[in-house]
Amino acid sequence: MLSKNQIRFINRLRTKKNRKAEGLFLAEGIKGIEEFLNSGFQLYRLFHTADYEPSPGLDAQEVTERELKSVSSLSTPNKVLGIFRIPPETPVLETGFSLALDDINDPGNLGTIIRLCDWFDIPQILCSENTVDCYNPKVVQASMGSLSRVSINYLDLEAYLNTTTRTVYGTFMEGESLYSTTFEQNGILIMGNEANGISDRIRCLVSKEVSIPQFGKRKSTESLNVAMATAIFLSELRR
Amino acid sequence: MLSKNQIRFINRLRTKKNRKAEGLFLAEGIKGIEEFLNSGFQLYRLFHTADYEPSPGLDAQEVTERELKSVSSLSTPNKVLGIFRIPPETPVLETGFSLALDDINDPGNLGTIIRLCDWFDIPQILCSENTVDCYNPKVVQASMGSLSRVSINYLDLEAYLNTTTRTVYGTFMEGESLYSTTFEQNGILIMGNEANGISDRIRCLVSKEVSIPQFGKRKSTESLNVAMATAIFLSELRR
Repeated sequence: MLSKNQIRFINRLRTKKNRKAEGLFLAEGIKGIEEFLNSGFQLYRLFHTADYEPSPGLDAQEVTERELKSVSSLSTPNKVLGIFRIPPETPVLETGFSLALDDINDPGNLGTIIRLCDWFDIPQILCSENTVDCYNPKVVQASMGSLSRVSINYLDLEAYLNTTTRTVYGTFMEGESLYSTTFEQNGILIMGNEANGISDRIRCLVSKEVSIPQFGKRKSTESLNVAMATAIFLSELRR
Repeated sequence: MLSKNQIRFINRLRTKKNRKAEGLFLAEGIKGIEEFLNSGFQLYRLFHTADYEPSPGLDAQEVTERELKSVSSLSTPNKVLGIFRIPPETPVLETGFSLALDDINDPGNLGTIIRLCDWFDIPQILCSENTVDCYNPKVVQASMGSLSRVSINYLDLEAYLNTTTRTVYGTFMEGESLYSTTFEQNGILIMGNEANGISDRIRCLVSKEVSIPQFGKRKSTESLNVAMATAIFLSELRR
């Protein structure tokens, strides 16, 4: 059974400020939670329905389906809700290829981008401080467990790009075609905000502007969504 | 001013059955509507707020912001709502490259796939009869006007694939890597349902099974979302 205090505590973790203060975040669903457990994330507490059997030794508490539904953000809650400790950020890698995000706002986009980095073996994402929090429940949900395998750092992106020795690629409508670009092994690819793209103060730190060309005669007036563009860039980078 | 009958009529068009019976669909927002108008779609009626000036000769009717909001499916309605005639399907092209969808359910996915086909100059999408209706308001919205430039056919996919002379590619987790596949100029690429992939009765009509390889050691347990996978396949096809 869930106490009123527990319900209040779980709901508190829906805001970034409270997650930061408590050092905790929420994850839902069997698959995602087992991936966090298997990746060494520290469980704070697990709430589960009677038909889910938690591994022995976990701090687990049985609740009714109705109670789980009352604290779930899913329309169809999936048997478990876990509270995990937010791990400390790992140091920024100075070699290899990283993705950098300049103010990505949409939780679904960030979750999808984390999945793509997991798929294409990009070990680290560098986020500007205004990028949506990766422990936002919608991001955790959309990342489908990939958040347990990709490390994410929030930092002053402008200051960092000023100091890095890696080649900095930025995505722009008018850049060189990605199909004719040779990406360095040690590089950073910046994806910009959904509405405004890469900001001017970041743009002047980009060493190479790249783009996805449109095909055919009839030109679309809309650019591709940032998650689509990330899929295409990472595929081209790794092929 | 909007009459009660008009409100009822607009709301009727939210279901596929009624859209089919009336031969009409809804589009919202200035950009999308202007793209439909420019692409020769026949307008049935346009509803707009006072701060939008429709081109002369259009069957347009001014409404208040509150009235527009009452029939809009957007949280922030964008000045215009148009009712357009559903155009007749164009004949199936027997040359060139087409995308085929085997029971795509999610309107957002179909809308995104239409945008991708527009971007990568795939002129036609062949949909199984159980694929979500492309005139569903959420699909129209997500396609961002690209629906005006990509032709879409609903058909018995199994029967069609039985007769086509084009090479049929299907996407499967265990197929040959798309990076080592040479795609024929006259081909069809099939993307499968979000939960179940390509059905068995379609699979036996596939001449080549292809996949997007995972990179790195740590394997994700989830496949990529179908819209992501489409982005990667179409980019590879056109590069």
